[in-house]
Amino acid sequence: MGASDIYKVGVYGASGYAGQDLIEILLRHPQVEVIFATSNTYSGEAIPNSDLQYIPHDDAPLSDVDAVFLALPHKASAVVAAQALAVGVKVIDLSADFRLDTPERYEQWYKVPHPHPELLPTPYGLPEINRANIRGVNLVATPGCYPTTTLLGLYPLLKAHALAQHAPIIVDAKSGVSGAGRSPKPNLHFVEVFGNLSPYSAGRSHRHVGEIEQEIAKINGNVGTLIFTPHLVPVDRGLMASIYVTLNDDVDSSHAQGLYEEIYDTEPLVRVLPAGQQATLRHAVRKNSCTISLTPVTENYLHITSVTDNLRKGAASQAVQNFNLMMNITETTGLL
Amino acid sequence: MGASDIYKVGVYGASGYAGQDLIEILLRHPQVEVIFATSNTYSGEAIPNSDLQYIPHDDAPLSDVDAVFLALPHKASAVVAAQALAVGVKVIDLSADFRLDTPERYEQWYKVPHPHPELLPTPYGLPEINRANIRGVNLVATPGCYPTTTLLGLYPLLKAHALAQHAPIIVDAKSGVSGAGRSPKPNLHFVEVFGNLSPYSAGRSHRHVGEIEQEIAKINGNVGTLIFTPHLVPVDRGLMASIYVTLNDDVDSSHAQGLYEEIYDTEPLVRVLPAGQQATLRHAVRKNSCTISLTPVTENYLHITSVTDNLRKGAASQAVQNFNLMMNITETTGLL
Amino acid sequence: MGASDIYKVGVYGASGYAGQDLIEILLRHPQVEVIFATSNTYSGEAIPNSDLQYIPHDDAPLSDVDAVFLALPHKASAVVAAQALAVGVKVIDLSADFRLDTPERYEQWYKVPHPHPELLPTPYGLPEINRANIRGVNLVATPGCYPTTTLLGLYPLLKAHALAQHAPIIVDAKSGVSGAGRSPKPNLHFVEVFGNLSPYSAGRSHRHVGEIEQEIAKINGNVGTLIFTPHLVPVDRGLMASIYVTLNDDVDSSHAQGLYEEIYDTEPLVRVLPAGQQATLRHAVRKNSCTISLTPVTENYLHITSVTDNLRKGAASQAVQNFNLMMNITETTGLL
Amino acid sequence: MGASDIYKVGVYGASGYAGQDLIEILLRHPQVEVIFATSNTYSGEAIPNSDLQYIPHDDAPLSDVDAVFLALPHKASAVVAAQALAVGVKVIDLSADFRLDTPERYEQWYKVPHPHPELLPTPYGLPEINRANIRGVNLVATPGCYPTTTLLGLYPLLKAHALAQHAPIIVDAKSGVSGAGRSPKPNLHFVEVFGNLSPYSAGRSHRHVGEIEQEIAKINGNVGTLIFTPHLVPVDRGLMASIYVTLNDDVDSSHAQGLYEEIYDTEPLVRVLPAGQQATLRHAVRKNSCTISLTPVTENYLHITSVTDNLRKGAASQAVQNFNLMMNITETTGLL
Repeated sequence: MGASDIYKVGVYGASGYAGQDLIEILLRHPQVEVIFATSNTYSGEAIPNSDLQYIPHDDAPLSDVDAVFLALPHKASAVVAAQALAVGVKVIDLSADFRLDTPERYEQWYKVPHPHPELLPTPYGLPEINRANIRGVNLVATPGCYPTTTLLGLYPLLKAHALAQHAPIIVDAKSGVSGAGRSPKPNLHFVEVFGNLSPYSAGRSHRHVGEIEQEIAKINGNVGTLIFTPHLVPVDRGLMASIYVTLNDDVDSSHAQGLYEEIYDTEPLVRVLPAGQQATLRHAVRKNSCTISLTPVTENYLHITSVTDNLRKGAASQAVQNFNLMMNITETTGLL
Repeated sequence: MGASDIYKVGVYGASGYAGQDLIEILLRHPQVEVIFATSNTYSGEAIPNSDLQYIPHDDAPLSDVDAVFLALPHKASAVVAAQALAVGVKVIDLSADFRLDTPERYEQWYKVPHPHPELLPTPYGLPEINRANIRGVNLVATPGCYPTTTLLGLYPLLKAHALAQHAPIIVDAKSGVSGAGRSPKPNLHFVEVFGNLSPYSAGRSHRHVGEIEQEIAKINGNVGTLIFTPHLVPVDRGLMASIYVTLNDDVDSSHAQGLYEEIYDTEPLVRVLPAGQQATLRHAVRKNSCTISLTPVTENYLHITSVTDNLRKGAASQAVQNFNLMMNITETTGLL
Repeated sequence: MGASDIYKVGVYGASGYAGQDLIEILLRHPQVEVIFATSNTYSGEAIPNSDLQYIPHDDAPLSDVDAVFLALPHKASAVVAAQALAVGVKVIDLSADFRLDTPERYEQWYKVPHPHPELLPTPYGLPEINRANIRGVNLVATPGCYPTTTLLGLYPLLKAHALAQHAPIIVDAKSGVSGAGRSPKPNLHFVEVFGNLSPYSAGRSHRHVGEIEQEIAKINGNVGTLIFTPHLVPVDRGLMASIYVTLNDDVDSSHAQGLYEEIYDTEPLVRVLPAGQQATLRHAVRKNSCTISLTPVTENYLHITSVTDNLRKGAASQAVQNFNLMMNITETTGLL
Repeated sequence: MGASDIYKVGVYGASGYAGQDLIEILLRHPQVEVIFATSNTYSGEAIPNSDLQYIPHDDAPLSDVDAVFLALPHKASAVVAAQALAVGVKVIDLSADFRLDTPERYEQWYKVPHPHPELLPTPYGLPEINRANIRGVNLVATPGCYPTTTLLGLYPLLKAHALAQHAPIIVDAKSGVSGAGRSPKPNLHFVEVFGNLSPYSAGRSHRHVGEIEQEIAKINGNVGTLIFTPHLVPVDRGLMASIYVTLNDDVDSSHAQGLYEEIYDTEPLVRVLPAGQQATLRHAVRKNSCTISLTPVTENYLHITSVTDNLRKGAASQAVQNFNLMMNITETTGLL
């Protein structure tokens, strides 16, 4: 594998919202040829802007491709991943199946036994934090929108051991509706969302709490409790994590700007706004990057706004970023 | 029955969008006591702003009430209507079951045999056009949003025999999403509707075409073809019918304003805007009335905009207006 | 003045969004007659659902009324207030002019000298917290949406001295666009707000920080720093304050529910949701009450969601609640 | 000039909504280098995704470029166009200044004398209809969203002389808010548009009526009256023209599908949907093409839905299409 090869790929679960964005990105990727795209619900339908049709999952010619992207529900995803790996096909998984490091933790949050515990732990596919462990591997767990946006918003502070040990990390998150998937549900009906704002899975009950804490702990074990509240907001796409933290006495909040700029200066897919500007959802929508703004509140308190497109850096484009790393091609190919 | 009595009523299908508005109106109606409200889906849940809970359809104490409102799917509605009438309970039906005058026409548009053909024809519950036939009766078919808004927009022209006989009546209709019901469906998912506009059932395929033509013919048989195109628009409620007609040589479009004002001047629930103003959705949303504006285009061509709240004058408040007529109480009780 | 009198009132600034809701409430208030409504911008235009027309501020017959509501910009409001008080007319002010207790604090946050320092301090018009000081008085400062929603969300904890002294009070607030007023501005253009979320006046820079802290201190001086971040969200009305607090060792977060229910049980215009339910914007929109939900996160951490309609309990209906108290009539008259 | 040259261009009025899309397209155009972009309102601000800053109109180095795009208000545009042409710079005008063929007609619709009548008539920049007259010329008038979407929706019928001579052409148009420009105005305030639908400039009063009729007449003089009603709808971008026509006896509506497919089969930027599918706004948003669907209503009546992105095929991308033709490079360069 090398810099100018063309790789054949397949996409499972291609008709969901993340799957659609994934197909769109892959069709323009200069080193990718999309061989198949599956959807049991929409099989037979044409895929926009392509000559492809959705095919049923079971008809996918797995052995014809170099890599597969799995935008499937958890539990189903692990099964296909194991099949693909068995025939030498690389796997970029977008489900929750390989994000938690142990089968016990998986069962704690997802209430089912892990289908393939022998594949754990899997490299966590957040390149800006874990790039070295993704390059060249055969299986990567791509994190979703909440963990990606939150972790990128916290990373420089975690790495600098800047957080007060006994203060909570508060994440008030606001998500566009596509984050909840394409299947019709009562709470996703237009009339229910229009003109409304709804917190859900408040406290520490959302499944992503375990995953975010796991990854925080790998960078820096001495931090306070994560308080994470997602909200459904009336936009189609985009995710904002409003993060409130207390710094320890080693760091003054006015130095945070420099800290973030230093870490992210070389990252093409993370942008730190100049001091005084606020990140808005629009900075991220339909973009493959994360945008971050920092507001020193007092010497000790810092307010961070981190935004992504939940279907791009929070799903599809991050999967392609991982794919590029796994194939040892330029990480941003097809993403700038 | 008389001017100051209190009537006991029940509502079937009370958890749908029209049902919710109906409950809201009835709870404030000075001559109504709501005895029960049914919902198979939400049975056991509390009804907002009341002490009531939804109960299953089959548990409704039909014999305890003077009248029932049926906000049920077609076919199911006729069955309950027959039961209610059999025990002397008046029925205000909001479904399609009694809107068409013959079982043949019903089967043509709804593709099933009529469950109770012996109850046809039923008075058509559009009071401004058919008031005399609604007073005191036991069963009324309340028309929905498209026919109500369209017929009120056309009525003065039809009555004045002002339409050119061989020109089409064009109705470009724009409906809020609640008009499609509360059941989750792929095309009603927030993400699908947000930022979008969609024509559907174009041409003459929408089920309400038959009903609108039937009622037009009763007023004036000599008119052209009805071309009716509904569109789904990204608002929760409200319906706009943009109507384009050709007048015959007896009437100049500049006289239409006077024609409409004359007919509707005494109607408390229809408002004709002064010449030069345009009816917007906001004129109608959360109101119990229809608002109409007229634009003479040329001597022969007239453009009419008619707006209602699809859940009020296009459903719930019109049902209550019919109820008032059936009970011989002031027609606008609880509606102004 | 007494229980069944009719009071003549005038409204200054009646064409703004709060002014419009105020007029709507007053027109249905059984003990109010609206004598005039001013708007320099829309003077001469008809006021919806009434026989009134907007008149210029200077034409208002101040001496013909018992009370005036001032929905004017700060600085302008104090001038009219002084004129009204001078002729014996009671004043319910909705501007910021009388909310801060000293001219110094006013100048600190509003960057202009106070126009009438002799009128300070003025009773703070948040009845659930300050009722005793509002009854019968001649001038009340009605707080706006952010302070009302935040203070009601915190009040039972403040009163119980339940907050940890050295932990911040974090308020992540989300506001509908009408909160920013009716004057066209670039950031309020439909295209800028649609599909977007924007933090603004982050850190401790928003003018309401001083006012909220002042009122917190009156209830309980020993609390941590207020971190307040407002966000503009794509809805027309409604305000959600997401509040994150740390409790001291005297109180366990699981007891908060009881604390709130006890305090608010007798308040007709504050509703505490049952444990486990989350307050959404829709609980408050077009309602005159505040709705609150509580989520214990850990023993020490509590997450509170407080919602109001920014134009009702956050402006117009609270002004009428104050009016009722000032006139010694039933506090909820015209509001239930 | 030729197939592989790089052309230097400038954009006047680059901060408006059409200007922003234009910059976005030009920055990715493989044969374009953007030399300057002007905005008096935002001069000095950075242009997203570029190294450029907006400069004041008067500072634009006109003689450094091969072509200029003018996204300026009418009247201002003609003045800059004349200056540019005088120094040998090609002009792609997006304003109304050169769309009408005579100064008389311009004055009739725009109520001011034409600033440069000597430049009229100018080639009308709708390539699918007028390609031959655009190639290689120095000045082109790019039509806006309403005329483009309407004319493309009618063109095959006009060319085939299929329209009944004495029946009106009815265009019920629905436009996203960006079509009204970026300047804040009361009717463009988020709160006014949200949840609303508004007809405006009804009848035949909209300025684009004259332009559409002028271009229809060039293709086919024997058609009926144009009835054109624009509506403002609560979406940020996209335009739908719902067109209702009467065919003459030479053509059956069921043949329209073939007629359109034949004409547009070779057009890369117009797409005719298969019979039975309906064009929705989403077919066009953020795309550079027009999508059309056809619904035969009766033998004589045809309903056409034509959609574009008002900022792309209705403005910016069509301007680039014209530029490509004027420079004799591949017409779709930078647009597919």
